[in-house]
Amino acid sequence: MSGVRLAEIVAALGGELLGEPGLVIRRLAPLDTAADDALAFLAHPRYLQQLAKTAAACVIVGPAQREAAALRGATIVADDPYLYFARLTQWWARMHGRTTVAGVHPSAVIEPGAVIHPAAWIGPLAVIGARAHVAAGAAIGAHCTVQADARIGENTRLHSRVHIGEGCLIGARGIVHPGVVIGADGFGFAAHEGEWIKIEQLGAVRIGDDVEIGANTCIDRGALEDTVIEDGVKLDNLIQVGHNVRIGAHSAMAGCVGIAGSARIGRHCTAGGGAIILGHLELVDHVHITAATVVTRSILKPGQYSGLFPFDDNASWEKNAATLRQLHSLRERLRALEKKS
Amino acid sequence: MSGVRLAEIVAALGGELLGEPGLVIRRLAPLDTAADDALAFLAHPRYLQQLAKTAAACVIVGPAQREAAALRGATIVADDPYLYFARLTQWWARMHGRTTVAGVHPSAVIEPGAVIHPAAWIGPLAVIGARAHVAAGAAIGAHCTVQADARIGENTRLHSRVHIGEGCLIGARGIVHPGVVIGADGFGFAAHEGEWIKIEQLGAVRIGDDVEIGANTCIDRGALEDTVIEDGVKLDNLIQVGHNVRIGAHSAMAGCVGIAGSARIGRHCTAGGGAIILGHLELVDHVHITAATVVTRSILKPGQYSGLFPFDDNASWEKNAATLRQLHSLRERLRALEKKS
Amino acid sequence: MSGVRLAEIVAALGGELLGEPGLVIRRLAPLDTAADDALAFLAHPRYLQQLAKTAAACVIVGPAQREAAALRGATIVADDPYLYFARLTQWWARMHGRTTVAGVHPSAVIEPGAVIHPAAWIGPLAVIGARAHVAAGAAIGAHCTVQADARIGENTRLHSRVHIGEGCLIGARGIVHPGVVIGADGFGFAAHEGEWIKIEQLGAVRIGDDVEIGANTCIDRGALEDTVIEDGVKLDNLIQVGHNVRIGAHSAMAGCVGIAGSARIGRHCTAGGGAIILGHLELVDHVHITAATVVTRSILKPGQYSGLFPFDDNASWEKNAATLRQLHSLRERLRALEKKS
Repeated sequence: MSGVRLAEIVAALGGELLGEPGLVIRRLAPLDTAADDALAFLAHPRYLQQLAKTAAACVIVGPAQREAAALRGATIVADDPYLYFARLTQWWARMHGRTTVAGVHPSAVIEPGAVIHPAAWIGPLAVIGARAHVAAGAAIGAHCTVQADARIGENTRLHSRVHIGEGCLIGARGIVHPGVVIGADGFGFAAHEGEWIKIEQLGAVRIGDDVEIGANTCIDRGALEDTVIEDGVKLDNLIQVGHNVRIGAHSAMAGCVGIAGSARIGRHCTAGGGAIILGHLELVDHVHITAATVVTRSILKPGQYSGLFPFDDNASWEKNAATLRQLHSLRERLRALEKKS
Repeated sequence: MSGVRLAEIVAALGGELLGEPGLVIRRLAPLDTAADDALAFLAHPRYLQQLAKTAAACVIVGPAQREAAALRGATIVADDPYLYFARLTQWWARMHGRTTVAGVHPSAVIEPGAVIHPAAWIGPLAVIGARAHVAAGAAIGAHCTVQADARIGENTRLHSRVHIGEGCLIGARGIVHPGVVIGADGFGFAAHEGEWIKIEQLGAVRIGDDVEIGANTCIDRGALEDTVIEDGVKLDNLIQVGHNVRIGAHSAMAGCVGIAGSARIGRHCTAGGGAIILGHLELVDHVHITAATVVTRSILKPGQYSGLFPFDDNASWEKNAATLRQLHSLRERLRALEKKS
Repeated sequence: MSGVRLAEIVAALGGELLGEPGLVIRRLAPLDTAADDALAFLAHPRYLQQLAKTAAACVIVGPAQREAAALRGATIVADDPYLYFARLTQWWARMHGRTTVAGVHPSAVIEPGAVIHPAAWIGPLAVIGARAHVAAGAAIGAHCTVQADARIGENTRLHSRVHIGEGCLIGARGIVHPGVVIGADGFGFAAHEGEWIKIEQLGAVRIGDDVEIGANTCIDRGALEDTVIEDGVKLDNLIQVGHNVRIGAHSAMAGCVGIAGSARIGRHCTAGGGAIILGHLELVDHVHITAATVVTRSILKPGQYSGLFPFDDNASWEKNAATLRQLHSLRERLRALEKKS
């Protein structure tokens, strides 16, 4: 990668530079493995001992580490070093990324009535359905399908092989990773004489602005009304979002989370990897679910909630798990003893 | 959406109409949010208080709610309102859907020897392999791959980007959602000197009639014999079905379920979201597995089975989880006390 | 399928043949369902009673079953019958598979600067990005995207619809199943005033030789450094591998496993289906995680580790689960009793 001078970085992103403005940075790197052409950051005092040892050309630190860092060499002091680093990665990606092109690749299939802004990009072998809208600055990657009447907002990027179903919409500045399926049918059936009668899913999916959706994640369309993902939501890979779910603004879910139909998740919530939220529940704002926890009833009070079996060496687990199956009777025996004593 | 008159609905689907046959319905909606041009349904007495308040033009109810509903306004009385509603959604989708076309999109790649019925539809950029069969009324969406010797039954619809592997087959009236992978290799290896020697997967996948498969779900091909999904099975999104599994007719699995190799699931079984069924097990007919439960041994008696850690606020969970790791010794201590007392 | 004579099999794979070398085998089959034109194997004494009953034309057995098997009919004696069977399936697949072709399908999109070996195959509607390398003998299936600067090693096969992101690489003899996403962005954000600020993911994914990756599995690119999958690793379907994870050589993970960011897994480790390994942990070599277990801290000692709630009939589970939420207080009550007694 071509280098940038520290002066360019602080000109673009702010922060106080201690050291040589002309120093050339060729990569961003973690503190512990940074080479002498790298810019690293110290976001947590826990890593303070790495600061003295790092070979990094320059380190981004908070005000409290100002002196320690300056003794070592070039330093950028920022109020929130992790936030500074996040913005630096964005700036770095823009500096080193290719310029986005506009236009329609000749191999794409554009159905009659699709409306594609001249400043949008449609990649190779993409399919854009009738009456679909693709706004200015949007980029539709290779092998994407944007079905009839769907709408893609300004500067939203669908990476390769994203499916946006009929009538679904996503707002501005979204990032959708490969394999995502928006708007498949929700899982709805009426039981009748031992068989399942399909309930056609007549709603759609509405996604707000600044939403990022990870690879192979699925968001089903609503049965009658829409499934809704509000602004600023971040979903990791391989997440399942059932029909008629609503996820409030700025909530974030880690990989492999499952959210069953009609669950209503508040704003600023988080769920760790593999958590499951059952259907028709409500989680208020600022609820945080620990990884692999199964939420089986509504949560009406903000806070952290957990429920996972603590792992152990297999022999210990076996003994405890076997006992667990008698736990209720153990309690009865304890009660009996208490009465006696 | 263009409207339909209540008379048309009862003419098509039956039920007793109380009220004005000429009333025009423009949408289907939930009872609580229905506008005055909507048809809603009351499937469970739990929602009875919504009946009086709803603005819906007409409500579908069971015989027990006949009087209460009629007082309110236009009503359709049906023996099973939820089933009536399911059929109504199907009828509605047919009325408002586009007419299915037949033919082969010019951008599709059809390999020599593929047999495509003239009344089937092959969408843009689909690939149909040698000697594959696509039956009358089948629809193969954009970016699907139907590999050599695979067979797609009558009126089965593969939504966009479905993969049907070599020699795999699906029966009639199936619905397969985007991203589904049928017939990838099962996970089979022989351990040898610390390495894994691949066992080629020589079986296929056979899927019956009236099966629906959710987005990004995977069904692996068998090692020697076939993986089998019987008639009427419904699988939600992001489900993993290992090699040589058999799922009995009319069973249904919610999102994120995992079924390991050679498990045999009976007929009319269900599994909640995130449940895991280990390999080489048998579940008899009418077994119901609660969400997130891990089935570690065969179940030979119909019924509901569960095994998930109850969630709690994080502090309570931490205390209980820590104690759980000493549960076996607590039992020993209880026994000691019991002997003494 | 056309048949092969037993003599051909032992000529290719070794083993001692007892019986008629000219006997024709038309299929490989499990011991219990084998027809009289099939070759079966007995890998475990547990299945010994099936040996007498099988209709198989010939059975592969270990030295200990030599006599019993020979009494029954044609037999191949091998030191490790399961390993012999694995190699037989490979030989069988080669014998019966179509010959791999080389070349570029006319419907593929090859961007300028891509380097494709003349002995590689690029399937229909694949997209190969600028400066990507595809080595000799590699096969890129229908609808794959190999993005700019990615590298595909010799004889590696991407089945249909695989995504290899910009700058990612996979070594030789890999097998990647449909729907796999290599090199989507890792899930990294800095929290700022209630919103999530994206950390651009500037690393890539590096995959070694002889790696197999199951359908719809995702491996994210690193934030600053690369996510690394070492030689001989086997990943099943629908697995999530977060950014900066390292999986050591010859480790194997079953379906639906989730590995959070920056976890470091040793060599020769295994994880059962649905296991979750949290981020920033270390697992040393030869650690084995039971299905559905959640690993919440580093494991520095080889062995088997477990942590899952034992399932039960629903009524029993409910009683035990309810009691579990009072477990800590039960311990306190037990302590109180112990003091008294």
